[in-house]
Amino acid sequence: MPPGPGTIVGVGDDAAVLATPDSRVVATMDLLVEGRHFRRDWSGPVDIGGKAAAQSLADVAAMGAAPIALLVGLAAPRDLPIVWAEDLATGLAQECARAGASVAGGDISEAATITLAVTALGDLAGGAPVTRAGARPGDLVAVAGSLGHSAAGLALLQAGLSEPASLLAAHRWPRPPYDAGPEAARLGATSMIDISDGLGQDLGHVAAASGVLIDMDSARLGPDEALRAAAGTLGGMDPLDWVLAGGEDHALAATFPPDTDLPERWVVIGRVGEGSGVRLDSRPSGRVSGWNHFR
Amino acid sequence: MPPGPGTIVGVGDDAAVLATPDSRVVATMDLLVEGRHFRRDWSGPVDIGGKAAAQSLADVAAMGAAPIALLVGLAAPRDLPIVWAEDLATGLAQECARAGASVAGGDISEAATITLAVTALGDLAGGAPVTRAGARPGDLVAVAGSLGHSAAGLALLQAGLSEPASLLAAHRWPRPPYDAGPEAARLGATSMIDISDGLGQDLGHVAAASGVLIDMDSARLGPDEALRAAAGTLGGMDPLDWVLAGGEDHALAATFPPDTDLPERWVVIGRVGEGSGVRLDSRPSGRVSGWNHFR
Repeated sequence: MPPGPGTIVGVGDDAAVLATPDSRVVATMDLLVEGRHFRRDWSGPVDIGGKAAAQSLADVAAMGAAPIALLVGLAAPRDLPIVWAEDLATGLAQECARAGASVAGGDISEAATITLAVTALGDLAGGAPVTRAGARPGDLVAVAGSLGHSAAGLALLQAGLSEPASLLAAHRWPRPPYDAGPEAARLGATSMIDISDGLGQDLGHVAAASGVLIDMDSARLGPDEALRAAAGTLGGMDPLDWVLAGGEDHALAATFPPDTDLPERWVVIGRVGEGSGVRLDSRPSGRVSGWNHFR
Repeated sequence: MPPGPGTIVGVGDDAAVLATPDSRVVATMDLLVEGRHFRRDWSGPVDIGGKAAAQSLADVAAMGAAPIALLVGLAAPRDLPIVWAEDLATGLAQECARAGASVAGGDISEAATITLAVTALGDLAGGAPVTRAGARPGDLVAVAGSLGHSAAGLALLQAGLSEPASLLAAHRWPRPPYDAGPEAARLGATSMIDISDGLGQDLGHVAAASGVLIDMDSARLGPDEALRAAAGTLGGMDPLDWVLAGGEDHALAATFPPDTDLPERWVVIGRVGEGSGVRLDSRPSGRVSGWNHFR
């Protein structure tokens, strides 16, 4: 694991020491448990490492920060092949590099099932953290990154299918748009969240924390061709449900003042209003529900 | 979990934001796995929370830093009683308070066995980090905190005994001398390590990282009355072995320039010399070996 530019003391001592030039650090931890967040028969170790890193790094981006470093805890059975752990480390390092971060430390222990604990640290570069609590009536609601692809990939895997590869890959190793987080902060985002539990449920967290209503416009959520094709293959599925309730894509959702000139990758999908909860086309909807991984 | 004074954004958002006034952060992660690092029939949840916090906070102190905050990941079976998790949180919060830190975030997941992942963050307050790599021939080797008590407590538990309570408590919930870490840094410590695997093994890490020999003086390691009494109860045990090879007390060992005026709690136990490895009374010793938790 090569040290990153902000690593003052790296792997191998009691603790790492990292540069936090803005005198604050963004810090988050996520767990990934075999059988719940990944299956070794569906995902290889490089993918699992990449997904583990992405999940935590996206939380840093969702505060408006740039990732600095990861700490990784691996609990695994004694008979885990060394090459599996090495490939896991490769995936972790590759996703770190994509985010401009590095692995700076961690721990290893024996356990019956594989559990990964990933702490990500990040730098706000002088900006204010963008929490879930600042959305105001009249704000635009916009999303950067893909929605529903991970859920569609999981549905295909559960059906025993192996095409299209792009959706399976989106489930195995999501690619969050990390730099869209600091970009949103610079654009004046009033709130932001990482889409990990599903668009509707995560916007519900923003609505609750901000004391507002969020209204999504279904015409702007139109599932793309890949999702429509996968729904056709599986039959009887409305691909909009993957967009609304599918988690784990780690897209970013943010709210912006109404006159914000948004770059193309921030797609407006709704509006903030007075009230509470999340609506679809101005109506309550049972389709705005959460995501329970392998439910 | 009450927020600490350095908590800018606490529990409940995508990530925490913490003040790191010295523009660096010390960061470490440790895992605790049920059946390997603790047993629920030997330790209650408050103790397990306290031990989990202590293990990571001691790593921060061993860099010469003051703990700021913890992130805690808990993977646990679905049928874990809520009160058990609440008591675990109580132990985490109590040990954090003892160290001047607070719990700032974390994650929860379902898993077959209880696994705790604890990240601790710390502040160097302008000082240089004290690594394992700076010991120089001629330096004093000194220890702050107790040695062998956790190992003796574990041996008593393994023998089905419940006295003396102080040694059992030392195994269930070690109490590292956190402020001795920054104190050592201010005194000019040339290297430092947290005693988690056993005094001999951990000094071996310092010797290897520093490229020196460490010679321990057995006359200065004299097991205290509690250890001698426990060894008498168990029979056939030399209590010095608990001091040399017992882990998990989370005492701090450090090296200091030879003319350092050490406060009373830093007990000199040996000298740094030219060479490599760890010796006891100037001779190689098989008693300087490691600790494998429940071996």
